[in-house]
Amino acid sequence: MFALILAGGAGTRLWPRSRAALPKQLLALTGGETMMQATVKRVLPLLPLEHIFVATNREYAPLIREQLPGLPAANIVEEPAAKNTAPCIGLAAAHMHRLDPGAVMASLHADHFIADEEGFRQALLAAAEVAQAGYLVTLGITPDKPETGYGYIRRGEALGCYNNHPVYQVSQFLEKPDLATAERFLASGEYYWNSGIFIWRLSTLLDSFREYMPEFYEQLGQIEQAVAAGQAIDAIWQQIQPESIDVGIMEKAAKVAVVPVSIGWNDVGSWAAIHEINTVAGKADAHGNVALGAEHLAINTHGTLVQGNGRLIATIGLEDVVIVDSGDALLVCAKDKVQDIKKVVEWLKENKRTELL
Amino acid sequence: MFALILAGGAGTRLWPRSRAALPKQLLALTGGETMMQATVKRVLPLLPLEHIFVATNREYAPLIREQLPGLPAANIVEEPAAKNTAPCIGLAAAHMHRLDPGAVMASLHADHFIADEEGFRQALLAAAEVAQAGYLVTLGITPDKPETGYGYIRRGEALGCYNNHPVYQVSQFLEKPDLATAERFLASGEYYWNSGIFIWRLSTLLDSFREYMPEFYEQLGQIEQAVAAGQAIDAIWQQIQPESIDVGIMEKAAKVAVVPVSIGWNDVGSWAAIHEINTVAGKADAHGNVALGAEHLAINTHGTLVQGNGRLIATIGLEDVVIVDSGDALLVCAKDKVQDIKKVVEWLKENKRTELL
Repeated sequence: MFALILAGGAGTRLWPRSRAALPKQLLALTGGETMMQATVKRVLPLLPLEHIFVATNREYAPLIREQLPGLPAANIVEEPAAKNTAPCIGLAAAHMHRLDPGAVMASLHADHFIADEEGFRQALLAAAEVAQAGYLVTLGITPDKPETGYGYIRRGEALGCYNNHPVYQVSQFLEKPDLATAERFLASGEYYWNSGIFIWRLSTLLDSFREYMPEFYEQLGQIEQAVAAGQAIDAIWQQIQPESIDVGIMEKAAKVAVVPVSIGWNDVGSWAAIHEINTVAGKADAHGNVALGAEHLAINTHGTLVQGNGRLIATIGLEDVVIVDSGDALLVCAKDKVQDIKKVVEWLKENKRTELL
Repeated sequence: MFALILAGGAGTRLWPRSRAALPKQLLALTGGETMMQATVKRVLPLLPLEHIFVATNREYAPLIREQLPGLPAANIVEEPAAKNTAPCIGLAAAHMHRLDPGAVMASLHADHFIADEEGFRQALLAAAEVAQAGYLVTLGITPDKPETGYGYIRRGEALGCYNNHPVYQVSQFLEKPDLATAERFLASGEYYWNSGIFIWRLSTLLDSFREYMPEFYEQLGQIEQAVAAGQAIDAIWQQIQPESIDVGIMEKAAKVAVVPVSIGWNDVGSWAAIHEINTVAGKADAHGNVALGAEHLAINTHGTLVQGNGRLIATIGLEDVVIVDSGDALLVCAKDKVQDIKKVVEWLKENKRTELL
């Protein structure tokens, strides 16, 4: 098995801690190690470090090398430009296919949190078995609330049990629903959150590119020739149409399977998510306050997250607030308004305050 | 006229900006100059700098010299130990009396804000006229709300008009009232806030010490002899019983007068007061937010005070919050809970975190 870790995202939802030059996957937000390091560590019991590849952009590559000192240099795939997930998964798949045409690949994200790591690995092993049967496989997260911020997967016919996991054909990929729809999804028991974690045989995936993204498949061939000839791939890469693997392949393919999992998965998409992850992990005080990287003196304060920089943060009379004290910027935000952090980032862009981005 | 400025207080209510080593009177909280400097500037149109004396402790004296470079060195009266207001007012009065036995003295605080400075000076001139008639005079602040945080003065019989100010005999000094009492005081029109600003002839004051604080008056005589002989006064000072001028003299004396004033007085006793002072001065944005010393990016934020240290403070979805970003500590506090800042300071003391006090 090979693993590809996608690590090119420049998340802004965790500003001011995450910055353009230091995105969330390279930060230690959920523990002592960075999310990138935790992602690698999570799969190491299944496959050697030499089988792990990281796709990122040229800006983040040096930091990733620093954080993963044992990773072979050739295993960091630098995208010349961001083209969404399909092209970079294709690029990595072609490379892995040269190394071992019969292998299975797991495509992971560098910025996901998973509480139950062994459960995750067992699900990957189940998915790998399903993949050997020619399926494109995804892990579907069993929902525990009517979340409107994720895409959903509807299951179809049962495909049987693999590594003690019931597995289903996918009947449909669905966009982020409104609340009423999400509640209906939750009640039916037939829907899962789309984790973006995929497992496939390399040959199945490359066949799918040929069938559903033929233009890209041809460009991939040109890239292979360029690489073989020791030439730069930048010019070909520039021609590629950006596309997500979901839209480009998964929503079109016929043989798609879902392995339902309950592994404490969280995409760490907001400060509220970080508060939740730490609360579930038992790191909140008796009043639901979570303090990370700071000493928090909480007086009459409840449900509040403090992400600091070493110095004392005293709070009085606060309810459900997020405080992020980070270098040259300080954020104080109502916890139910964390989605508006993007407005701060937009304002900084409009006002050319690049030093704060 | 002489002025004595009391500058020995170590206020904790403006933590973390005010610290034990840097109290609020030595900070620029209401404008570009420190409150100490503003207090001096406010009276300079009435009397020369040589007539201004500052009473403080030995720790603050060097900073005060720095902030008031033109003040004669002998005009800074260093108390060997804090003994409340009566002893230090007596010490200064005895000294001024040697310089000019017929003079009037105004006793002021270094940490009060006064919006209408000319109105304040005209009231001082009125009070000086009343003082010449042998009264101990105080400025009474006409209340505009049922404040429970101040002591009150009840007026008695009218004494006539001085410098266009109606003046009254004081019938009673009252402790901080409960809300119902404060509302009754406000409605009656006969009560004023006790500003702690006093004006008296030096001879009247010294006579009052002899009559109402005879033990201290005798100690004052010993101090005079020690000073004349060039000896240290510390040993005598240690014997003095602490006492406030209010309790020691004003509440006991027969001839006490009040000059009612409406001069935008504020004792700057909390961060909420600083928000109010700046709002009245037109420094709030359209949503009632006040930013001091920081760039404030306010999204869906109302009635919030930001006191910063130069860096950007972004807030989202906040209502009536105080944020004080100050060196090694950060405070985020509901504006109606600023009185609990003293709990933070108590915690720091109990836990021997003197570096943060």
